[in-house]
Amino acid sequence: MRWLKSAGCWPSALLLAGRVGLRAGPRTASGSPETPELQGELDRFGGVSVHLARHRALHGLDAAAFRRLLQAALQQWRSEGRVAAWLHVPILQSHFIASAASLGFRFHHADSHSSTLTLWLGDGPSRLPGYATHQVGVAGAVFDDSTRKVLVVQDRNKLKNMWKFPGGLSEPGEDIGDTAVREVFEETGVKSEFRSLLSIRQQHGSPGAFGKSDMYLICRLQPCSFTINFCQQECLKCEWMDLEKLARIDNTTPITRRVARLLLYGHREGFDKIDLSMEEFPAVYTGLFYKLYHRELPESYRDTAGTD
Amino acid sequence: MRWLKSAGCWPSALLLAGRVGLRAGPRTASGSPETPELQGELDRFGGVSVHLARHRALHGLDAAAFRRLLQAALQQWRSEGRVAAWLHVPILQSHFIASAASLGFRFHHADSHSSTLTLWLGDGPSRLPGYATHQVGVAGAVFDDSTRKVLVVQDRNKLKNMWKFPGGLSEPGEDIGDTAVREVFEETGVKSEFRSLLSIRQQHGSPGAFGKSDMYLICRLQPCSFTINFCQQECLKCEWMDLEKLARIDNTTPITRRVARLLLYGHREGFDKIDLSMEEFPAVYTGLFYKLYHRELPESYRDTAGTD
Repeated sequence: MRWLKSAGCWPSALLLAGRVGLRAGPRTASGSPETPELQGELDRFGGVSVHLARHRALHGLDAAAFRRLLQAALQQWRSEGRVAAWLHVPILQSHFIASAASLGFRFHHADSHSSTLTLWLGDGPSRLPGYATHQVGVAGAVFDDSTRKVLVVQDRNKLKNMWKFPGGLSEPGEDIGDTAVREVFEETGVKSEFRSLLSIRQQHGSPGAFGKSDMYLICRLQPCSFTINFCQQECLKCEWMDLEKLARIDNTTPITRRVARLLLYGHREGFDKIDLSMEEFPAVYTGLFYKLYHRELPESYRDTAGTD
Repeated sequence: MRWLKSAGCWPSALLLAGRVGLRAGPRTASGSPETPELQGELDRFGGVSVHLARHRALHGLDAAAFRRLLQAALQQWRSEGRVAAWLHVPILQSHFIASAASLGFRFHHADSHSSTLTLWLGDGPSRLPGYATHQVGVAGAVFDDSTRKVLVVQDRNKLKNMWKFPGGLSEPGEDIGDTAVREVFEETGVKSEFRSLLSIRQQHGSPGAFGKSDMYLICRLQPCSFTINFCQQECLKCEWMDLEKLARIDNTTPITRRVARLLLYGHREGFDKIDLSMEEFPAVYTGLFYKLYHRELPESYRDTAGTD
């Protein structure tokens, strides 16, 4: 039940898959070129992936003929002990999807121009990993330590006019801090820089997430400009508000009030009391960098010496 | 460009949509019942949603006829100033997808038995919100303060045998702490309780995320049992390791080493130096609860009095 579902376990295999050629499909007696075969690629977990876009022979094939082809391939894969089948379907070949569904395939995910379907062939319940489960929203608490003012907005199109920090959904591939800085600028016209991560909220069944879950992060930002030029489409009001006032008023969301109080604590006792600092590390697999957020670790603990 | 994309903004509208009936589709001259119409539902952002499952008249319709129907409906929606169209397609009606794609529709997402396609009809670039962008993985650092030992595993099926904390992907709708406790138990047989959140990593283009991003969180857990009975499928080794050793050795991941040092700091100076504590709040929209994680806030700052 578990190893396939471990974080990052299965899909790493998909990356390796392209290097392992496998002619998987019904073997015709004659092997005649007129009979198309489904070329599968084996992954190291014992699954087979088929990219329909790479099968020119499928062009012009009707749904019933594709179903027979897939059915024969499935029979072969089962006999070979394959544990899963993946079908990658370009959107213009979607007429094959219902055929695959009639053989038990289900959507794993779809994005823009293509969909991916899966069928578990192994014993017991499916051990295939799921797809992205969370949307990520980020808000920026832009706080000016010298004036003790914080930037707040009231959303347009909301039932209640609550003061909150400007923010919005992350774009694909965007870092938390970059989302906060971008959204603050788009909503309010104020430029700012990332300082720290302050809080993380996890919520399920949020109406804003198409049935998925929501991770909402609030960052502390340092203002680089102060002139407000707020987005009229998005905001009803925008102002620099005294932090003590924000921590006290009623027409604010519970999270905004809580973070306002955190900021007040940080302002009085030092931001090291409230901040999660950020550091970049090189990623093993991709050659890219990832960002890690945690409480500040004293220098003495960062060297090997500090652990002795 | 922005208000539709604000966190939670657009999809709340979809929830309201069902209450606003709209007969959207080509008006035939005769209005004869033989000509099916696409029943759309208007949302408060000016988009139209069509659930194909609710259109019995579509059964038996071929792809070309559906295309004509959709094309006429689009013309009507554009003339009415609709800004977006959403098509919800049951997997067995997927033969309509290519027709929709030929009119400009693209996948927004798909899950199990259905897919959702969208087409932006408004001015300028699309302001439609995206789908879930992150998978969430959680690891548990199970630390026993009295023996100063921490529970670590080596994954099977990895190129390098690195010591790390047990963990895996969150199930849909599962809270961070619950994932950590479940994964630790499944991998090691050790029972534990959630204590705090220690760190958050954000990574893009991870091979484990089907092209999406990855949020990886490490929790501090308190052991409730100590006997190891580890999953042979998933783990190569599992042991209670001295925390100082884990903070020092080479064959561990950078994040594991960093968190080991955080734990050491917490063990020596107090866990309040490293923990993010968790609190539940009632959610405005759903009636459910969400969980908020941040640095511990002193009691005096939690009351209104503390802010004066």
